[in-house]
Amino acid sequence: MGRGLFVGRFQPFHLGHLKALRWILEREDEVIICIGSAQYSHSLRNPFTVGERVEMIWRVLRYENLFDRCMICTVPDTNNVHSVWVSQVLAWCPKFNRVYTNDPLTSLLFLEKGIPVEKIPFFNREKYEGTKIRRKIALDEDWREYLHPEVVKVIEDIGGVRRLKELYNL
Amino acid sequence: MGRGLFVGRFQPFHLGHLKALRWILEREDEVIICIGSAQYSHSLRNPFTVGERVEMIWRVLRYENLFDRCMICTVPDTNNVHSVWVSQVLAWCPKFNRVYTNDPLTSLLFLEKGIPVEKIPFFNREKYEGTKIRRKIALDEDWREYLHPEVVKVIEDIGGVRRLKELYNL
Amino acid sequence: MGRGLFVGRFQPFHLGHLKALRWILEREDEVIICIGSAQYSHSLRNPFTVGERVEMIWRVLRYENLFDRCMICTVPDTNNVHSVWVSQVLAWCPKFNRVYTNDPLTSLLFLEKGIPVEKIPFFNREKYEGTKIRRKIALDEDWREYLHPEVVKVIEDIGGVRRLKELYNL
Amino acid sequence: MGRGLFVGRFQPFHLGHLKALRWILEREDEVIICIGSAQYSHSLRNPFTVGERVEMIWRVLRYENLFDRCMICTVPDTNNVHSVWVSQVLAWCPKFNRVYTNDPLTSLLFLEKGIPVEKIPFFNREKYEGTKIRRKIALDEDWREYLHPEVVKVIEDIGGVRRLKELYNL
Amino acid sequence: MGRGLFVGRFQPFHLGHLKALRWILEREDEVIICIGSAQYSHSLRNPFTVGERVEMIWRVLRYENLFDRCMICTVPDTNNVHSVWVSQVLAWCPKFNRVYTNDPLTSLLFLEKGIPVEKIPFFNREKYEGTKIRRKIALDEDWREYLHPEVVKVIEDIGGVRRLKELYNL
Amino acid sequence: MGRGLFVGRFQPFHLGHLKALRWILEREDEVIICIGSAQYSHSLRNPFTVGERVEMIWRVLRYENLFDRCMICTVPDTNNVHSVWVSQVLAWCPKFNRVYTNDPLTSLLFLEKGIPVEKIPFFNREKYEGTKIRRKIALDEDWREYLHPEVVKVIEDIGGVRRLKELYNL
Repeated sequence: MGRGLFVGRFQPFHLGHLKALRWILEREDEVIICIGSAQYSHSLRNPFTVGERVEMIWRVLRYENLFDRCMICTVPDTNNVHSVWVSQVLAWCPKFNRVYTNDPLTSLLFLEKGIPVEKIPFFNREKYEGTKIRRKIALDEDWREYLHPEVVKVIEDIGGVRRLKELYNL
Repeated sequence: MGRGLFVGRFQPFHLGHLKALRWILEREDEVIICIGSAQYSHSLRNPFTVGERVEMIWRVLRYENLFDRCMICTVPDTNNVHSVWVSQVLAWCPKFNRVYTNDPLTSLLFLEKGIPVEKIPFFNREKYEGTKIRRKIALDEDWREYLHPEVVKVIEDIGGVRRLKELYNL
Repeated sequence: MGRGLFVGRFQPFHLGHLKALRWILEREDEVIICIGSAQYSHSLRNPFTVGERVEMIWRVLRYENLFDRCMICTVPDTNNVHSVWVSQVLAWCPKFNRVYTNDPLTSLLFLEKGIPVEKIPFFNREKYEGTKIRRKIALDEDWREYLHPEVVKVIEDIGGVRRLKELYNL
Repeated sequence: MGRGLFVGRFQPFHLGHLKALRWILEREDEVIICIGSAQYSHSLRNPFTVGERVEMIWRVLRYENLFDRCMICTVPDTNNVHSVWVSQVLAWCPKFNRVYTNDPLTSLLFLEKGIPVEKIPFFNREKYEGTKIRRKIALDEDWREYLHPEVVKVIEDIGGVRRLKELYNL
Repeated sequence: MGRGLFVGRFQPFHLGHLKALRWILEREDEVIICIGSAQYSHSLRNPFTVGERVEMIWRVLRYENLFDRCMICTVPDTNNVHSVWVSQVLAWCPKFNRVYTNDPLTSLLFLEKGIPVEKIPFFNREKYEGTKIRRKIALDEDWREYLHPEVVKVIEDIGGVRRLKELYNL
Repeated sequence: MGRGLFVGRFQPFHLGHLKALRWILEREDEVIICIGSAQYSHSLRNPFTVGERVEMIWRVLRYENLFDRCMICTVPDTNNVHSVWVSQVLAWCPKFNRVYTNDPLTSLLFLEKGIPVEKIPFFNREKYEGTKIRRKIALDEDWREYLHPEVVKVIEDIGGVRRLKELYNL
């Protein structure tokens, strides 16, 4: 046991992420939820600000009573200067033992620095997929069923449907 | 009531900060603890990485059972480009109603953007003062009494005394 | 009445822009011509430096006797960190009341900050269109009729046809 | 004759600057007023945003009827990477023949790139001196006599006295 | 005669580069091998760090006994701010008289600053082509014949085949 | 034996540096001369560009016939973001086993990442000291005796005395 780093952009944090988090919590004492690409927002791939993503995850952790074993961290990306990205993560997050990610580049970068990496099993991957969910929000069609009710509240609060519509030019 | 933003560098998070946090919690429903100058570390003014500071605060919140009303956010500073700093805070933190700070520049910047600012009463200011506490850690003399036991653990874990000694050239 | 912000990249400033400027001047006392993406040049989308664009617009304003109601400002873009772009514009330009733009992202960003945005009617859009005009300059074919004679002079002065040819690999 | 580049930070643009501008206009056909350190504001040395400085100078040019021979440009500084600063100026400003400055580093950098530099005679230097004028604004004592009435209006409009007071901790 | 600047990304340094270097050495007393895009690595176009590229070239120069007339320099690119790129090269490299490159943008930028540019004849271009060689490394098929034995050693040392495989998702 | 990293700013490379280099060469098979603060120049602490420093060292290595065991690398500093500086060095330099430095911060940063650090004995420290030598160049008094004749040539070639005089306001 130990502490795992769960890396993602969480645009938005969806039910697939929550399942993955619970799966990691079976394997680790504590989990750092590491929100990457922190500085980006208002684009198709990264519609939500990092503050909005922190709020989504914080509310889910509170609702699900997971605070004691989870911490939320944010990491800006390094504008394609991949060689310093791992040390940026190490500076922006508390210590950890293992990284959980399915992203090949993230995996390569940690492994080259000697940090162990684990794959996360996909939970209904074709259903819980960021790109698809963002499109559904933009079209305002059945997106709520992919998200925790607390995340739905955040997106409604900040006018997320309207923002996505504008970004998708709908 | 509403949500307050408690701005600081928390180098390290000390008992004066905890008293201030409790004082703000009497006035707000929720508090965002906003760790500024996030990208800096290993200097006299900013010895600890932002990840280390997150761990300090997270452990205190867990120990004191304050998770339900507090969230931890981190904000990189803008290299003296003060005109965009407030919007950087707005992007890196969830929404809030009021700012709590005693720093004159932070105060000026928020007020010019129309965001209300409150001063925090000092709790034994000459005792709980960052510069003084950092020097005490470097000298390894009675620094533990200024910090929450959970923060002491983090500093011991990461070899903080040695780092401060090196930075102070002791 | 008041002051409008006319946002564009002006690569180059063409007769469609001049018509738009006159249309805004009917609605506002003063207009800030805000040259965006200021740091970029020597690319297909942004062939001209911001200094060259300032000279184009300054000469047109002088020729057309519009100085008393127009000012020229330049704003660097924020490398996709969209959340701070509006505050960057607010810092790099004098105060204004309304934004004039047809760009959906620009519009979204200002509206989310509570700043009113107006669309500009297109004046012969299929004729006056940046991409098309840049290609015509590269091919050195009938591009002069799309531009004010003062802008033509600047492009000739700086060897603009040759630069565009190189950028288009012609 | 030709075109001169008048380099300064113009914090704020004062009557000494206006005298210098008139002196340069006797020697050149046209003058580019080049506002340096454009990205900085809200500090003791750089209290005003570049947009505020543009407005000060634009209003003076309009009042003094100097638009036809003067253009206003802004240049961000390069965070101490002095070797690229001259090429940054060349990109952010229209072409010029000569530089007017009394700053030794500015002078050195242009001369090393083969661009001629001229000193500006000081007009009542001990009177018209930026640092002194900023302190007077902070103290709100007889600062108006050092500035053009149009600049006074801008500073009053933006609450400049209050800002300076805060920055000086008065 | 004089000193030539041989500009490339050298991802990796291959036998076509070595032939080009020898061809330039017939025309110049000395050659600066200028490694561009220095900050990038771990991407399809730029798999190797600049340190790895320095080692490749340094070993080849040593093996081929070319040290006396060749120096290795590295230049970070300027994130699409093309207008300052030439002055960045001038700051990061010793003085030179002529640039050797086949890249149209590099060529344009140097020519606009008045620095002479020469094309390099291609030596078996369809054989020695970076993109093709990188793909061959990823597939681990006959890539060694395109590279100097000293470069092969570096790539094997750093686990280059595995890195390319991961980047190509093979 | 192995490969050592000799870290310095080399402003300029003086005879004390050469003695240190020879001392390291007795302990290592190969030495990487790592020029730090690469992006800075034209200041009191960093008067020479990185290209000028590369030329100084390259000429000394050629003259002293040290090429086979020494390589020259350059590393930009990270604007006080100390937590990623070591990984920046690792990306900009070939692999090495040990670091040679007397700078406390450099030492601390490498040690925290688990990389061994050795102190360099000072060779006539009060004689060979960068700040002192730079002042002597500015005053143009007996500076040549502190430098290798090849370095003297570079400084004369680039007009170094004049530059230092200007920077020192002499």
